[in-house]
Amino acid sequence: MALQDPTPGALDPVALAQALIRCPSVTPADEGALDVLGRALEGIGFTCQRLRFEAEGTPPVDNLYARIGTEGPVFCYAGHTDVVPVGDAAAWSIDPFAAEIHDGVLYGRGAVDMKSSIASFAAAAQAFIAKRDSLPGSIVLLITGDEEGPAINGTKKVLDWMAARGETIDACVVGEPTNPTKLGEMVKIGRRGSLTGRLTVYGAQGHVAYPHLADNPIHRLVRMLAPLSKTYIDEGSDYFQPSSVQVTTIDVGNLANNVVPAQAKAVFNIRFNDLWTSAKLEAWLRQAFDEGLGTDGGRYELACSTSGESFLTEPGWFSDLLQDAVEKVTGRRPELSTTGGTSDARFIRAVAPVAEFGLVGQTMHKVDERVAVEDIRKLAEIYETVLTAFFARNSART
Amino acid sequence: MALQDPTPGALDPVALAQALIRCPSVTPADEGALDVLGRALEGIGFTCQRLRFEAEGTPPVDNLYARIGTEGPVFCYAGHTDVVPVGDAAAWSIDPFAAEIHDGVLYGRGAVDMKSSIASFAAAAQAFIAKRDSLPGSIVLLITGDEEGPAINGTKKVLDWMAARGETIDACVVGEPTNPTKLGEMVKIGRRGSLTGRLTVYGAQGHVAYPHLADNPIHRLVRMLAPLSKTYIDEGSDYFQPSSVQVTTIDVGNLANNVVPAQAKAVFNIRFNDLWTSAKLEAWLRQAFDEGLGTDGGRYELACSTSGESFLTEPGWFSDLLQDAVEKVTGRRPELSTTGGTSDARFIRAVAPVAEFGLVGQTMHKVDERVAVEDIRKLAEIYETVLTAFFARNSART
Ligand SMILES: [Zn+2]
Ligand SMILES: [Zn+2]
Repeated sequence: MALQDPTPGALDPVALAQALIRCPSVTPADEGALDVLGRALEGIGFTCQRLRFEAEGTPPVDNLYARIGTEGPVFCYAGHTDVVPVGDAAAWSIDPFAAEIHDGVLYGRGAVDMKSSIASFAAAAQAFIAKRDSLPGSIVLLITGDEEGPAINGTKKVLDWMAARGETIDACVVGEPTNPTKLGEMVKIGRRGSLTGRLTVYGAQGHVAYPHLADNPIHRLVRMLAPLSKTYIDEGSDYFQPSSVQVTTIDVGNLANNVVPAQAKAVFNIRFNDLWTSAKLEAWLRQAFDEGLGTDGGRYELACSTSGESFLTEPGWFSDLLQDAVEKVTGRRPELSTTGGTSDARFIRAVAPVAEFGLVGQTMHKVDERVAVEDIRKLAEIYETVLTAFFARNSART
Repeated sequence: MALQDPTPGALDPVALAQALIRCPSVTPADEGALDVLGRALEGIGFTCQRLRFEAEGTPPVDNLYARIGTEGPVFCYAGHTDVVPVGDAAAWSIDPFAAEIHDGVLYGRGAVDMKSSIASFAAAAQAFIAKRDSLPGSIVLLITGDEEGPAINGTKKVLDWMAARGETIDACVVGEPTNPTKLGEMVKIGRRGSLTGRLTVYGAQGHVAYPHLADNPIHRLVRMLAPLSKTYIDEGSDYFQPSSVQVTTIDVGNLANNVVPAQAKAVFNIRFNDLWTSAKLEAWLRQAFDEGLGTDGGRYELACSTSGESFLTEPGWFSDLLQDAVEKVTGRRPELSTTGGTSDARFIRAVAPVAEFGLVGQTMHKVDERVAVEDIRKLAEIYETVLTAFFARNSART
């Protein structure tokens, strides 16, 4: 499309990051964050739509869908403006919502996860647009206020809304912090899945002095958990580290040390790679638990919930393009990785190739979350390089 | 000694049991129970002393020391007037402190554990005395109000008080309910010891998505408890069943299923036979726990407390005498056993041969605790037979 105002004033990603951090948008609150972003994007030619979703038992959440361009190909940037709570407020050196810069470092909740990344992408889009008379496709921002929360009224529902309107995308970068210590170290091309299991084992209450009359559910639970207590349950695969189990709690709550309790409960979480699906994992668990019970039988209940299957965007043109762009700006060729927690990429991977690249994650979710101002500017450069390469590749193909 | 009033009126054990049950002496309360008993014993010639003991952090407890006679040999009956709480009061068919008799069965808290047994012994003593012009020794009752509670201000301290005054005994029957289903089935000649262990395992908190940065104390705890979860840790000995372990609780209290906790706690109780002492057991536990930790080391704390070592009154003249008396009255020769929970016999065994014989324990500590009136009368007969045999044996020897 032809651009109406081909030379809007340059957008400063640092100033925009500060403005976003100053909105205390602790999930699920918005506190004006999406308005700040929407105004900035409209200022450079985007059309913005606010999408509010709610579901029984969850708070309503605002999302922002911004688009410039009407043709394909469509490049999408996905992110979130909600942030995790401040935690121990007294432990912060600086007001977490003041967005102050000291010695070239911007402090604040959301500084790396991930308001500064959103600002960098907005600046990249502005710079990319400013250099052109017409846009060789479309750029979309899918920004949710529900990533750090239950993630029910966010990216997933925006994607449904897009599908219903026939809006497609051809590739997507998610702006989560991906670098362990330095900008340029790591691009994420997949994530392990996450399954949470709640195990309840039943027995028969009784006095410890008469063990033959009681049936201790804790003993059975210990035997059942034994195969899970080795942490890793496979050796990993081509692009994934080994799947790991962590038992996160066992609770019986029996205060009488002369009484065998009637039941025992455990909760565990499994981060699983592409050797598994949640269904395969649950079948494996039930078999392992049945074996752990031994010949004495005994009753247990297992409830599994999966917050995301494992997924992989196979290395190829898109990961090459990202690695090239990062290397060009930082001088480092980023590793392709599938480590870490879940992100909204697990929803997007169903509609387009998706990968993640953002800032340095070291201080995310912690006290004194912070980012080097220089990294914000470099990230804007990287995102602009990505946009340039993406559209160059696609115009070369057509 | 010569008896002052050789023919006091017969003492009805059933009426005395009812009077005792009507005092709601839920541990540590007395509610007049020791007064009722003291008056009955004084009425048949006993001299009674009330001994009140207290200790920092425990309620004061009344005990009763009753003696008739000044010479040896001394036969002792030991028991307690305190009872366990009624539990679910609404579930009782009959007021637990009304001591009503229906169809030949006396209902009430303490009916078998062990107010009726005390009444039976008082009646036995009265009958034994009434048949004689002079007493061939002494009879002592050691009755505490602190057996169902912490057992700190009860039998143990009465024994200390006796030792300080040079009061000795030559044999002792403890009136705890010992028969599983029928009067005459079982005499207890020892008890297993009881050790309670509190295990705390330390690790390093972390996010489940980064297992290499965390150190899960639950996994270690599960490995450490594995050797304990088999319930029996030996094969038993001549007079004892196998020693048994019961893990009674595990508590972590971690509500975040994406976080590995920093510590995990377990409590277990071991009932151990004469193959062990508490010291030997604790050494075995520490070795097993160190092995369970494996090569990764890790820190744990184990605190053990022992409420009683195991003990045995070797079968011999005293157990023969008890078995003979029971068989004479009931037609059943009772088994010599060391099963069941702890009792105050663990303190008495240090000063004299001690064994336990009482009513049928089926309903003890339960709703609708009850005893057949006929059993109370038969138990009085048995106790009288024991007294007769004990003093006959001793006068034959002198
Ligand atoms: Zn994030
Ligand atoms: Zn008792």
